[in-house]
Formats: sequence, C-alpha cells, structure tokens
Amino acid sequence: MGMTMSEKILAKASGQAEVRAGDIVWAKADVALMHDLLGPWLVDGAFKRLGGKLLDKEKVVLVSDHCTPPATVQQANILKFTRDWAREQDLPYYYEFEGPCHQVIVEHGHVRPGRLIVGTDSHTCMAGGLGAFATGIGSTEMVGVLLTGEIWLKVPKTTKVVWDGELPHGVYAKDLILRTIRDIGHAGATYEALEFSGSAIASLSMDERLVLSNMAVEAGAKTGLIEPDEAVAAYLRDRDVSEMDWMASDSDAVYERVLYYDASALEPQVACPHEVDNVHPISAVAGKTVDQVYLGSCTNGRLSDLRIAAHILKGKKIAKGVRCLVVPASQSVWMQASKEGLLDILAEAGCIINMPSCGACGGFTSGVIGAGEVVMSSSNRNFRGRMGSAAGEVYLGSPATAAATAIEGKIADPRSYIEKGGEQNGDYSRTRMEIR
Amino acid sequence: MGMTMSEKILAKASGQAEVRAGDIVWAKADVALMHDLLGPWLVDGAFKRLGGKLLDKEKVVLVSDHCTPPATVQQANILKFTRDWAREQDLPYYYEFEGPCHQVIVEHGHVRPGRLIVGTDSHTCMAGGLGAFATGIGSTEMVGVLLTGEIWLKVPKTTKVVWDGELPHGVYAKDLILRTIRDIGHAGATYEALEFSGSAIASLSMDERLVLSNMAVEAGAKTGLIEPDEAVAAYLRDRDVSEMDWMASDSDAVYERVLYYDASALEPQVACPHEVDNVHPISAVAGKTVDQVYLGSCTNGRLSDLRIAAHILKGKKIAKGVRCLVVPASQSVWMQASKEGLLDILAEAGCIINMPSCGACGGFTSGVIGAGEVVMSSSNRNFRGRMGSAAGEVYLGSPATAAATAIEGKIADPRSYIEKGGEQNGDYSRTRMEIR
Repeated sequence: MGMTMSEKILAKASGQAEVRAGDIVWAKADVALMHDLLGPWLVDGAFKRLGGKLLDKEKVVLVSDHCTPPATVQQANILKFTRDWAREQDLPYYYEFEGPCHQVIVEHGHVRPGRLIVGTDSHTCMAGGLGAFATGIGSTEMVGVLLTGEIWLKVPKTTKVVWDGELPHGVYAKDLILRTIRDIGHAGATYEALEFSGSAIASLSMDERLVLSNMAVEAGAKTGLIEPDEAVAAYLRDRDVSEMDWMASDSDAVYERVLYYDASALEPQVACPHEVDNVHPISAVAGKTVDQVYLGSCTNGRLSDLRIAAHILKGKKIAKGVRCLVVPASQSVWMQASKEGLLDILAEAGCIINMPSCGACGGFTSGVIGAGEVVMSSSNRNFRGRMGSAAGEVYLGSPATAAATAIEGKIADPRSYIEKGGEQNGDYSRTRMEIR
Repeated sequence: MGMTMSEKILAKASGQAEVRAGDIVWAKADVALMHDLLGPWLVDGAFKRLGGKLLDKEKVVLVSDHCTPPATVQQANILKFTRDWAREQDLPYYYEFEGPCHQVIVEHGHVRPGRLIVGTDSHTCMAGGLGAFATGIGSTEMVGVLLTGEIWLKVPKTTKVVWDGELPHGVYAKDLILRTIRDIGHAGATYEALEFSGSAIASLSMDERLVLSNMAVEAGAKTGLIEPDEAVAAYLRDRDVSEMDWMASDSDAVYERVLYYDASALEPQVACPHEVDNVHPISAVAGKTVDQVYLGSCTNGRLSDLRIAAHILKGKKIAKGVRCLVVPASQSVWMQASKEGLLDILAEAGCIINMPSCGACGGFTSGVIGAGEVVMSSSNRNFRGRMGSAAGEVYLGSPATAAATAIEGKIADPRSYIEKGGEQNGDYSRTRMEIR
C-alpha cells in the first residue's frame, strides 16, 4: 500500500520507512520559521529558562513582517526585540522589511520539496506549493523546536482536490481555492492534508500555486501540498537551489476522500463576510459598494497578480471615493513590478502603492478599516474584525476581481475588463502577459 | 513708513490701507485648511451647534493625510468621518491619500502670493514659501473661520533673515534653516513673522524654499515668508494659476531685527535630540549610530530631495541593520520620482519606499520608533516622543545627510558622497541634476 506525499515527508522527517495517517511521530524540522509578532519576544522567556541554546541556527529563519513598518511604539519595540534577538543569536537568516514571511522564505530558497517546515503562523502552509510539508505551530511549540529540532506531529489524513480542465480567462487560482473551501467548509479539513492535483493545477505558475497552498488552512487543513514538478525545479534553480527531495504520492496511496472539479466551468468567486467558506459566484455579489480595495498580501500580491491588475487598470481610473491599496508580496516583487512599469500604471489609475508588509491584511497597520467600511481584498481571511473594526466587512476575491472592483467602486466581474483589453490572447494566469 | 509683507497681506485681508505690527485685525481667510486628525471629527460638534453652515465652501480645503493609511481602528474611523464630512458638506476640495496637506495645497494651486491661509496644523506656515501669510490655528478657532470666514489676528513683528552668497555643494535649505533656528532659538521668534531673503534664498528652487517656510514655526514664528518672484509665478502657471497678489516688503519697512548670514561658509547642520534648536555642525555629530533613516515628509520629501538621495545612493547599499524609509511628499512626487527611476535606485540600495503620508514624522504610523532607537530624519521636529517612544532619539538633517547616514549606518557628512559622484557640476539644490 502506497503513501501520500504527507506520509512520505513525515516518514523521512521521523526516520522511518513508513508512516500512516493517524500515527504519532517525532519529526525533525528542516526549517523553523518565526516572525516578529509571534516570534522571539514571545518565545525568549521559555527558551532562556530551558537553556537558551539553538540546536541548529542554520534551520532557523526569522522574518520581521508584521510590525513593519511599526505603527505603534509597541510594534516598534517588538521589531527592535526581534532584530536584537537575531543579532544575539547570530542568526544567518534574518529578514526584515522584505515582506510577509511566507513569500520571503520561498524567494530565498528555504522552501524545497520534501522538507518539513514549521512556522509560528497559520499560513505557513503556503510552502506546500513547492511540495514541502509545511504547517503553523504555536510559539510555545516553537521553543521545543528551537531547542531540540523536533516536534510531535500526528500524520494527517489527506483529502485530494482534483481540478482538471483549462481555467477560463479572468478565473484564477484564488477562484479555485475559494470554491474548494466553500465545498469543504472552513473546518471541513481539520487536521487533514489537502493535496491539489489535476491538469488545471499542473498548468498553474508558481505564483498561482502558492495561492492554493496558502489558503489550505482556511479549510482547517494542517497543510496543503502540490506535487513538485519541473516548474518547481526551475523556480529553485533560479535561486541556486539544486538539493531537492522529490516526493509524490504513490498511485495506490490512501486518501480520506477525493474531490473532482472541472476548472473550465468556473466563474470568479467571492468569499463574503465573515467566513472564508461563505463563497458565492461573482454574479451573485456584484454591485456591492466598497470603501477600500486591498490588492496584495502573501496570498495574492505576487508579480503575476500585479500584472493582471495593471492590465485591467491601465489607462483607467479607480472610482471616486474608493481607496485602492497595492501591497506587493515582497520587496523583490516591488522592485520587479517597478521595473516593468506596473507600479506606474497602477499609480496613474489612482492606486496607492504601499510597501510590502503583512499590514492591513491582519489589521496591524497600513490600511486598517473603520466601522461600517467594506473592503474587497485579495488576501486570505475575512473573519469579523480581521482587517480592523469588527463592524467592517471584508470580501475576498482574486486580484482581477479586486482591480475591476476598484474601477467600479463596487464588487465587479473582472472578465469583461480582460476581454475588452487588447491582449486577450495572453494567458493571464501564467505570467506571460506583456503590459507594455 | 513702509510695510512688511505680513503687514501688507493682513491689511488687505482686513480691508484696511495700513496695519502695523501689534495691531489686532479681523482678517478674512482665503483658505481654511483642515486635515483629518485635527479637522471635522473635532470641529463638527461646535460647528453644528453654531448653525453648521459653511460661509464659503470654495475656501475650505480638507486633506486626509495623518490617518492615511489607517494603522488603528480609531484612525480608520477618523478617516471615515473626514471623508463622510467632505461628502456631507459637498466640499469641492477634498484630498485623501495624496500626502501631507502642506504639500498638497501647494501642488493644487491653493497657495498663492498675498493670500491669508489658516490651517489646523502648526506647519501651515509652509505656504509662506510662495509669499502667502500662512499660519496654524486651533481646531476651535477653525469653527469660527468655517462659519464667518474671519479670524482675529495680531499683526506680527517681523524678523528678517538674510542669507547671501552661494550654498556649497552638499549644503541645502535644510541646513540654512537649522542654523537659523539654532541662533533664534526654538521660541525666539514667538508670534513673529520670519522673512527670508538674500541671494542664497533667491536662488533656491521652489522645493527648497518650502523647507524654510515649513520650519519657521520651529523658531516659534507665526509664519515664515519669502518674497514671491518669477520662480513662484512659473510654478503657479504650471498649475494654471494666473491670479496672484504680489506683495513684497517695502524698502523702508520696519523690522524687529535683521540677521545676516554668509551661505558660502555653511556646512551641513544637524538638530540633535530633543529640540530643533539643538543644532550642531555635521562635523560635531558624525559617527552616531542610527537604527532608522527617515527620508521624506512635507519638509524634505520633494522631488529635488529624492534626486539628491538617489544621486548619493545610486549603486550603493544602505548599512546592514539600518532601515531606510523613503516617504515622498505627495502622490504626485511619488509618480514623478518613479518615472525618473529614482525609486528604483533607492530600492536597489535597500531603501523601503513608502506611500506619501504624515506617517512616522508625527509618530502616527509607518515607521514609529521604539525605546532606545535612534533616527536620522529629514523631517521637521525632534521633540521627545515625536516619532514614537519617548525613549527614542531623533536627529534632523537634510536628505543628503540622511542618505549618507543610511550608507554608513551612522550620522555621516554627505559632502564626500556628492564630490565622489560623477555629476559634481550639477547644482543639486536646484533640481537640475540628471540621475540617469
């Protein structure tokens, strides 16, 4: 009987030939990820009481992303603590002001197929887009990982999500995952692994794959994986990474269930307040007036996302009374988008280009919403109060839906904007489009 | 006996042929400026109790700049209140997310020679750089201006500050004004007008003149004026403004005192914690380690400032452990700087490009400092706690000094960086430099 990707990775991480869903394993982590908000300033006390010696600092990655830029003295103090801790521990991998940690660790080559990655953030699962087993853990659990390199894990069951067919223009990975979460429910895959496969998934760019794995936790999943392929290898070679432990599920692996979808029939999807599984097709929610559009985050602030948005917004103006905040997923994305002229196009349209940061996505800074305000966001969570006031409302959609919404000032179907453009033959979901 | 510029403008505004320093006048304001933080949400109660009818909405300019982007729910609620108030009052001039109000009202042509401009912000005096009498007032006073169009003012005495000679390379308007404030003291010109003149002042670009008037209040002055000339007329013609009421001080005007300086002998100046008049030459403070460099604000975030910084930082990297936040003075500046490639140069050097906002300058958001942190800032105020923690330290200098400091990670003299460059023949203070 074969194993799933998750089982294989956890077998390797726990030094066993075979493990099965339900087994309890002690696994060695390849990467221990912390960020400023749920990192050193929380773990340092217990860490020091238990000896205060990192087992292997090469495996620790620390990213300041939540308190950047600091909006309050408390945030500034947390940032300073984090920075000082990195210096004190002589960490080789400390990044700050580069953007959300999930994107940063992918860009810097810390995420590789077959690795076990644990991080003090629920969206650590994003790394599964490259075929790693990646999951969020608590800051207290992290103390143990820092000291011993190991963590106790239950091997999860796997739900396989198959999307076959070609995505229609104007429909993206965000729409796939929102539709998937609608069906599974926000707690429907609790402690399971989601494994995304099918021809629609295989044809996605790396940028787009990461959207799926990023949001696996929104169905309650422990992780979300995609079988690595040549696209992953090429992405990593660009980052001078050649060491990859290729793991795919065996053909006779045992799944908890398998869901099949036809991607070609999908229309843009929107998650309505206040749950990520409250998903409706764009046709059902179009017309809802918004105050803010948030175009960015680690979910959907990558280059292909900004290209799509720029394509839609080029030569147009955002609606009066709407603010549209563009937040690239990393400093590297910011720089490439600037070089391609995308930021200029977006600014000409009336968008505000902000620095890469977790920012308003988590309600920390840089675009927090007030009572009664409505947001269309390309981020990953719309819980009550998530982006600021508990009396605000957050709708989630693709960057294309966000861009179209910015133009109309109300939730809008992006497909007409793409079809009207002169570049309909481009495949906007695969980053080949030329903006200018 | 002749009149000073201030006397002439206040004579006109109060409908009299002549007024003298010390006179009390009822003056009609040409522009009533409010921003989000000290605007509608503070004035609305009294305004409504007293009738709630704007005398002349054409004279009201409202700019949301302090709570943009909102970092807290309170800021978001203030922003929403401000936006809703602009809609309710059907204001023709409401700007948001365009940057600090003082820059925005200049760019949009609200500031003109001979005008009386009152605003609910202490740096309203910046408008004096175009020959307006501009001063900060309280939010309660603003209620009266909104309802009656008038305000009670005492005609100020004038201190004339004469800077003759040519500014050395690497020395800028910021250095002039810091040196001036050192001599006058932070309260030495209380309720006076400062009038800047001399050949060094006349040769300054509009961008640079605004630095002087912006910081007049840091000597306690009611306003800071520069006699308008062809540079002002050209600046305003570019903004389709032809109506200008040219007012210059008479040759026999009476000054409280006149200070004479030789600009050619000046070296870069730095205001040390925690007063703006605690000013020392760069040679006395160079070497102080910093955690953050803040390159921007309404004081020194204009195009010429970003050009200088880009010239210094091109091809270099900022020091490890330092964060350098670039905050253009307006969305218009952001867009022009992006088109010129300045933002790319700064980002390549490791700077973070933030959106235009009052942000960290006032400790509201986007770069607030923590306890024990040290900042070199191109902004206008270094009071204890101004930029965040009261246990932090703020040093003020020119954008050139800030850029050099970012490279070294400690306060640095910018002159060697400019002389080392290939473009020494450019006149960096006058915006003629070509970066690429």
